[in-house]
Amino acid sequence: MSALATAIYRGQERMPAPDPADRGLAYGDGLFETMRVSGAVVPWWDAHLARLANGARRLGIPAPDADWLAGEAAALLAAAPAEAVLKLVLTRGAGGRGYSPPEVTVPTVVLSVHPLPAPFDGPLTLRWCEVRLALQPRLAGLKHLNRLEQVLARAEWNDPAIHEGLMLDAAGRVTCATAANVFALVGGRWLTPALQEAGVAGIARGWVLANAPGAQEAELRPADIESAEALFLCNAVRGILPVGRLGQRAWAPHPALDELRRRLRRDVPAF
Amino acid sequence: MSALATAIYRGQERMPAPDPADRGLAYGDGLFETMRVSGAVVPWWDAHLARLANGARRLGIPAPDADWLAGEAAALLAAAPAEAVLKLVLTRGAGGRGYSPPEVTVPTVVLSVHPLPAPFDGPLTLRWCEVRLALQPRLAGLKHLNRLEQVLARAEWNDPAIHEGLMLDAAGRVTCATAANVFALVGGRWLTPALQEAGVAGIARGWVLANAPGAQEAELRPADIESAEALFLCNAVRGILPVGRLGQRAWAPHPALDELRRRLRRDVPAF
Repeated sequence: MSALATAIYRGQERMPAPDPADRGLAYGDGLFETMRVSGAVVPWWDAHLARLANGARRLGIPAPDADWLAGEAAALLAAAPAEAVLKLVLTRGAGGRGYSPPEVTVPTVVLSVHPLPAPFDGPLTLRWCEVRLALQPRLAGLKHLNRLEQVLARAEWNDPAIHEGLMLDAAGRVTCATAANVFALVGGRWLTPALQEAGVAGIARGWVLANAPGAQEAELRPADIESAEALFLCNAVRGILPVGRLGQRAWAPHPALDELRRRLRRDVPAF
Repeated sequence: MSALATAIYRGQERMPAPDPADRGLAYGDGLFETMRVSGAVVPWWDAHLARLANGARRLGIPAPDADWLAGEAAALLAAAPAEAVLKLVLTRGAGGRGYSPPEVTVPTVVLSVHPLPAPFDGPLTLRWCEVRLALQPRLAGLKHLNRLEQVLARAEWNDPAIHEGLMLDAAGRVTCATAANVFALVGGRWLTPALQEAGVAGIARGWVLANAPGAQEAELRPADIESAEALFLCNAVRGILPVGRLGQRAWAPHPALDELRRRLRRDVPAF
């Protein structure tokens, strides 16, 4: 994903480039957010910042000042296309003796603007990934920078007709796609994995849980997915994308899914 | 760990700084080696390079040409203290769409020289860490850049009287210290965890397995460690360090451990 513009900070000081000793590069010691930009603003900014602050607290990284960050993001977006993607990386900065955190942490922030991916309205074709997500409650739900499992999973296929892959955790539970959350309509209810031990708690997922009547977390096995009445993936860049096919199983458009997408579009016109 | 000298490469081309879109920073998508320098050379160079090549193969990252890398390392070390630490980071480079690897991978290499830590001959005082290592056979044994578990574990204490922490995996098996491998003398044999599902297969560990008579991999529980006749940690920077205390348990110097350290010093005088 080539950047249209990038701004790098040590604390609040602008830097020309990342420090080669940055702990983000050394250990994946940080977090990120990938945000949809529409009309030169980020419609879900508050939700992204709340997740970032929660992740920073769990990792013990000082979160950047929210007003400062909003100002820097606005300045970067003012010179960018109105429809775009904004990525934010927050790391524990440089320093420390080995894994030991530095005595005084000056976090690194990288803001970068990227072109919006080509429009795609679905339906998606999915596969099952072979790589399983390890169970790590201390990191589950966070959008942290330790993403080798997703990299290995996404490298399992290069057929452009396959859009995404669903991942199981080590206990065989459906967890998420490599870069999206998953919802299955089961008995008329939208269900999504609970992510207590693996996976990323996405912002679009949070919107669905808060806005789809009866939506809730549940344990889902592959058979639950394959027998679901409807299936969709969601993330903060593309919103809600219906799944049309997974292996031998095909789904026709479903009125409950169409209704949910209309509701999302009313709330966030970008989607 | 502040660097005395740093050299950054995109492929074999020298770069002034890391690319902010480097996949090492974005996803921890890479590997590293931490090497003892003695007499301006790396005594275990071949073993480090072999591990790097194996890790690169498992992650699907092209390994740098060994002769080129040796030349660049030698040039950097020629201007550095004769006794030092050389760190090598290899990443999948910049690019790709999200987690998807780039169509053509031009790896990043970062070489950096660091001061040798202050001399310390042990004995070590250890603790048990609360963070457990997730089970991930696809990444186990590799010295990859996804090290948040070690960062969280090392952040559990800041008492300078505690030198290191032992980590269990999610199944309750002793796996390693945060930045070292562990050997326990049990029934007259040096035993070390097998690392099929978690942990880093260290270079010093490899030397011990190859050189200590009867040393072998075994499943070790905390009780096995606490009842061991002797205990040591090892890594490629410090060699073999005896453990003197773990919680309430204390160990006196053990002749088998003294003999093993003498053997290591004969083989690699730096230790």
